[in-house]
Amino acid sequence: MKQFLDNDFLLTSSTAKLLFHDYAKSMPVIDYHCHLSPKEIADDVNFKNLTQAWLYGDHYKWRAMRANGVDERFITGDATDWEKFEQWAATVPYTLRNPLYHWTHLELQRYFNIQSVVNPQSAKKIYEEANAQLSTKAYSIRGLLTMMHVKFICTTDDPIDDLQYHRKIQDDNFSIKVSPAFRPDKAMSVSDTKAFNDYVNQLSNVSNTNITGFQTYLDALKKRHDYFNKVGCRISDHGLEKMYADDFTMGELKNIFSDLQCGKKISIEKQQKFQSAMLLFFAEWDWEKGWVQQYHLGALRNNNKRLLTKLGPDTGWDSIGDCNQAKTLSAFLNKLDEKNMLAKTIIYNLNPADNEVMATMIGNYNDGSVAGKIQWGSAWWFLDQKDGMTKQINALSNMGLLSRFVGMLTDSRSFLSYPRHEYFRRILCNIFGEEIEKGEIPNDEKWVGKIIRDICYNNAKNYFGL
Amino acid sequence: MKQFLDNDFLLTSSTAKLLFHDYAKSMPVIDYHCHLSPKEIADDVNFKNLTQAWLYGDHYKWRAMRANGVDERFITGDATDWEKFEQWAATVPYTLRNPLYHWTHLELQRYFNIQSVVNPQSAKKIYEEANAQLSTKAYSIRGLLTMMHVKFICTTDDPIDDLQYHRKIQDDNFSIKVSPAFRPDKAMSVSDTKAFNDYVNQLSNVSNTNITGFQTYLDALKKRHDYFNKVGCRISDHGLEKMYADDFTMGELKNIFSDLQCGKKISIEKQQKFQSAMLLFFAEWDWEKGWVQQYHLGALRNNNKRLLTKLGPDTGWDSIGDCNQAKTLSAFLNKLDEKNMLAKTIIYNLNPADNEVMATMIGNYNDGSVAGKIQWGSAWWFLDQKDGMTKQINALSNMGLLSRFVGMLTDSRSFLSYPRHEYFRRILCNIFGEEIEKGEIPNDEKWVGKIIRDICYNNAKNYFGL
Amino acid sequence: MKQFLDNDFLLTSSTAKLLFHDYAKSMPVIDYHCHLSPKEIADDVNFKNLTQAWLYGDHYKWRAMRANGVDERFITGDATDWEKFEQWAATVPYTLRNPLYHWTHLELQRYFNIQSVVNPQSAKKIYEEANAQLSTKAYSIRGLLTMMHVKFICTTDDPIDDLQYHRKIQDDNFSIKVSPAFRPDKAMSVSDTKAFNDYVNQLSNVSNTNITGFQTYLDALKKRHDYFNKVGCRISDHGLEKMYADDFTMGELKNIFSDLQCGKKISIEKQQKFQSAMLLFFAEWDWEKGWVQQYHLGALRNNNKRLLTKLGPDTGWDSIGDCNQAKTLSAFLNKLDEKNMLAKTIIYNLNPADNEVMATMIGNYNDGSVAGKIQWGSAWWFLDQKDGMTKQINALSNMGLLSRFVGMLTDSRSFLSYPRHEYFRRILCNIFGEEIEKGEIPNDEKWVGKIIRDICYNNAKNYFGL
Repeated sequence: MKQFLDNDFLLTSSTAKLLFHDYAKSMPVIDYHCHLSPKEIADDVNFKNLTQAWLYGDHYKWRAMRANGVDERFITGDATDWEKFEQWAATVPYTLRNPLYHWTHLELQRYFNIQSVVNPQSAKKIYEEANAQLSTKAYSIRGLLTMMHVKFICTTDDPIDDLQYHRKIQDDNFSIKVSPAFRPDKAMSVSDTKAFNDYVNQLSNVSNTNITGFQTYLDALKKRHDYFNKVGCRISDHGLEKMYADDFTMGELKNIFSDLQCGKKISIEKQQKFQSAMLLFFAEWDWEKGWVQQYHLGALRNNNKRLLTKLGPDTGWDSIGDCNQAKTLSAFLNKLDEKNMLAKTIIYNLNPADNEVMATMIGNYNDGSVAGKIQWGSAWWFLDQKDGMTKQINALSNMGLLSRFVGMLTDSRSFLSYPRHEYFRRILCNIFGEEIEKGEIPNDEKWVGKIIRDICYNNAKNYFGL
Repeated sequence: MKQFLDNDFLLTSSTAKLLFHDYAKSMPVIDYHCHLSPKEIADDVNFKNLTQAWLYGDHYKWRAMRANGVDERFITGDATDWEKFEQWAATVPYTLRNPLYHWTHLELQRYFNIQSVVNPQSAKKIYEEANAQLSTKAYSIRGLLTMMHVKFICTTDDPIDDLQYHRKIQDDNFSIKVSPAFRPDKAMSVSDTKAFNDYVNQLSNVSNTNITGFQTYLDALKKRHDYFNKVGCRISDHGLEKMYADDFTMGELKNIFSDLQCGKKISIEKQQKFQSAMLLFFAEWDWEKGWVQQYHLGALRNNNKRLLTKLGPDTGWDSIGDCNQAKTLSAFLNKLDEKNMLAKTIIYNLNPADNEVMATMIGNYNDGSVAGKIQWGSAWWFLDQKDGMTKQINALSNMGLLSRFVGMLTDSRSFLSYPRHEYFRRILCNIFGEEIEKGEIPNDEKWVGKIIRDICYNNAKNYFGL
Repeated sequence: MKQFLDNDFLLTSSTAKLLFHDYAKSMPVIDYHCHLSPKEIADDVNFKNLTQAWLYGDHYKWRAMRANGVDERFITGDATDWEKFEQWAATVPYTLRNPLYHWTHLELQRYFNIQSVVNPQSAKKIYEEANAQLSTKAYSIRGLLTMMHVKFICTTDDPIDDLQYHRKIQDDNFSIKVSPAFRPDKAMSVSDTKAFNDYVNQLSNVSNTNITGFQTYLDALKKRHDYFNKVGCRISDHGLEKMYADDFTMGELKNIFSDLQCGKKISIEKQQKFQSAMLLFFAEWDWEKGWVQQYHLGALRNNNKRLLTKLGPDTGWDSIGDCNQAKTLSAFLNKLDEKNMLAKTIIYNLNPADNEVMATMIGNYNDGSVAGKIQWGSAWWFLDQKDGMTKQINALSNMGLLSRFVGMLTDSRSFLSYPRHEYFRRILCNIFGEEIEKGEIPNDEKWVGKIIRDICYNNAKNYFGL
């Protein structure tokens, strides 16, 4: 009987233990995609309590609480922070086998050195102990990041963002490099004409561009791309149900844009044409500047209209979609590759039924110019757990080169989520360890150790040119 | 070397053994969805022999026999019961690794205390031993059910069913509660105009309603829904290739119904509109009465036209489909949720490639009002085996709350299928046991034992208000 | 710690070892589907070196090298054979956990008795050792095949092939039976009118038929089918993104063919109609002659246009597609079955998300006339590795009869690929062994041994009438 979450958590063989403790554990963390708030990093405040650190904005936990029958008042409502924590603590024992159970206790151990298991009985003591620590200087936002041996953080930012917080962080010479990512989802989404036009106005202001038609719209976005580059951005990101790769002409785009400016509703077909075009323009700019582009494919968002209307996006109403992905994804990559304008690219899928499509798709566009040029991104969002990671690692191994994988990222909104890198590393080391012990891989500790270190850190470092 | 199907079958750790034997085993059985014949329960007859109990109507076994090259005469044809049993006994050794192999021997052990392995050599002796027992009072239909510690059975019934057998069972004060489920598949299926009109006529008779148009059609169905409720029905069920959620107007429905009455063939588009509407009406009635509604999605039925024509539906020509499920399922749930009329709902998928879609979809509509309000149903039909159950349990664990799961049902036409609950429980306990021993779950026997008992019995008891 | 790739490679229990060494290992090999060159078998030449044997034409290895950042010059370009080998040897250590790593070392052991691990340090010595052996008589093409205990090889051939090499091999009384398979992909593909017309011309010549319209086109193909049969062909094969089963009339086919002859571009809809028709005609001929027909479904081919244009098809630009497969596959099988013209059929899928669709689809058309009449083919192409095979074996076990499976094939272009049969057998034996030791299967060595031998050899022997 192994103790819960001990030093050798998830490591089931002596080789796995050796690989993790001697090779993986000490590698720094590169978090090349997350949703952390640059403002909070810039301000470097302290969380008032564990509820604020854990439960403000974490829709993973909210969904668990709702499934557990907790009233919304204790989730996003006006209950006190302690009341919310109490409800969360009562929910935790019901999350057994959910990754939240592991994250929760890993975070308590790593950040707060609290070994207790969360439940209604332990709630008060844990809350007070963690709060006491959170109020100290060492537990400011930057303190929390520094504790976890993070070297690089890439946030997710809209083109109209002025990046003032990124500049402030840079000016402060914060020891961790924090860069923005260019995420122009709103610049392509023309299903809601009013929302799009509002966006165009904001873009016009921030870019000092008089947007009179499609070409000036493109110019304004290009200026923002240039500006992001100047502030250190080297990564773009896109969240899409699926890839769009319809053919289009500049004339069509001009007409669509002009219809939008007249307040007209755009047909689904034209929306897709517009998205296809914008994706291509952005990708070409990425290629010109040598950026890495990321595509997060497969979420079915904003399902529950009643609660979405009440609480807004990103509050727990998204799930996994089942669109067919392969053809348009290939068509899109091909359009770029044919022009020799395909940047380094990371593709993420949310439905694990698409794993093998992704694992083999990247091989079509790996042309030998860069090792691991086209990457299949780490198990993401709902898949960011032991089974999901294992399946992604196995499919990538079977159909590509795991050794060239850029590895884990947090994709998180939480400043306490960095132990997920450790979690990933333990799983990775355990997989290699088990196969070595079973004679499926040569017992070459040095070589396997090198590959593990590459996946944990070096591959990403090289890939992102850090 | 562990003995085949011994006391610790499927239990690979001492913790798993403890959890099963001390917590799971003794819990009663709630079979909230099955296809048992209420008539047979009412009549409480005895099977004449093992062929009648095992091979009359079990298309799982029929498919195995056909794949094994057995002539149809010995399956659904005019061979004698002994000849059929002989062929089945010759097939069993070829079903190694198929769940039928486990079911078969579990059923022999649990009902008949027969430990032999089925093969041509043992066939005669097994047949005679089982037949002798089947002829005794203790082995009547009700005896078989009582043996397995069943507390509640919910059958599957058409709205036009008069439920006379359910009433008889109730009048008899049978110790097991037997309720009908309202399954109006035929009331929505308008692909075959003649069959639909026949159905409308029957409905008209049984409901004492003069069906002159769509509104009176709806009234007649509503009367049946009320009647089912009166006879104790609290669960509805629907078998669908996919969910339908098209928009519609009452005018459109009236026109479609009027076209049907004129004997016209209905276009696919209009069929879907009609189905979308009916599903919504039924769901609203379910909500009004506080029922639980079930949706079985993803079967591709009636594939082999030649043999379907010869033998009829449910004789082994159905398989797993690959329709895209997510969007219409979400749209349907959303239509109800927006009106605040979403009843407790269980969704089942038949293609395991949809597991993660289902596991995350339920989270979109869990609003905290009831713990586990929206459920992802247990691995069903072709998935009702060790791998299928394990995948469902794991995906549910990773993306939702396993602890709130209402657990296993038989979905069976066979009165000998109750050991499948035991099978499920062994798998469940083994999963928890293994993770406790590996330190992935705290070694808290009481808490894990409670969760297991909840999944085995208490959750369903509460969910169905028993 | 087990040694890498030792005698008990992949065998984790003593029962598995017994089953493999005593039952599986010595069974001969039937390779009922591969892409070996009949010319090379006829000519019976020797490879000049290991690069020619391993790296000429193996797009699996090419994709790995490209993903590893190797320049195309060292893959398909003008680098010397040694330079190419050097790059491959430098890539091998990066393929850890990819099946290439196992294939590579299995092939070195089995053909050359070389136990070293491939890396830049060992490259020279391995190259020289293997080259020395390759130059000897025993290592001619036929020698390599004979070494591996192969009894039957079925190649893949276009209807216009004159089969001269097959006839030569037969005339030589080569101890291994080598038959052609009829693969008329080009005869159905009408997306490129010019390419199709060129094909029709070639067909006209080889069949001595004046092709003036659709009927004579069909006649010419039928003559080739007859001719293939005469030369010993008993298997057809088809490579398709998905099955096509549209309705059609002879009039429509005549018009489409006539449009093609006029050089017109055919609409997608008509292309599918044409393909649907041709598939049906071929299938009826297969049935008339008692052949086995194979369908390889689900590849998304020719993705990277830039490199496809440069290097041609089958050079590494194909991947896994995600078309919906179930309905048209069922419709196609049903069209044949309704006429009682459904030949023995093997269906392969490339996307493992379709595994359960395939595993259950075959059951719809198994009618008891032949044991295992409709087969779900072994894990194919990208799935031809431990996880892929295991998933296929498990899904087949759960939803059909593994015991009736015709088992492994190489599907390979490489004369060194036969150890893949051993690989498959080890996996198969390990699965059975593990379940016996866990008490999930009776410890009946003789019976399980028989089933294993059936899957390794006897089932295929009977199925293909060898």
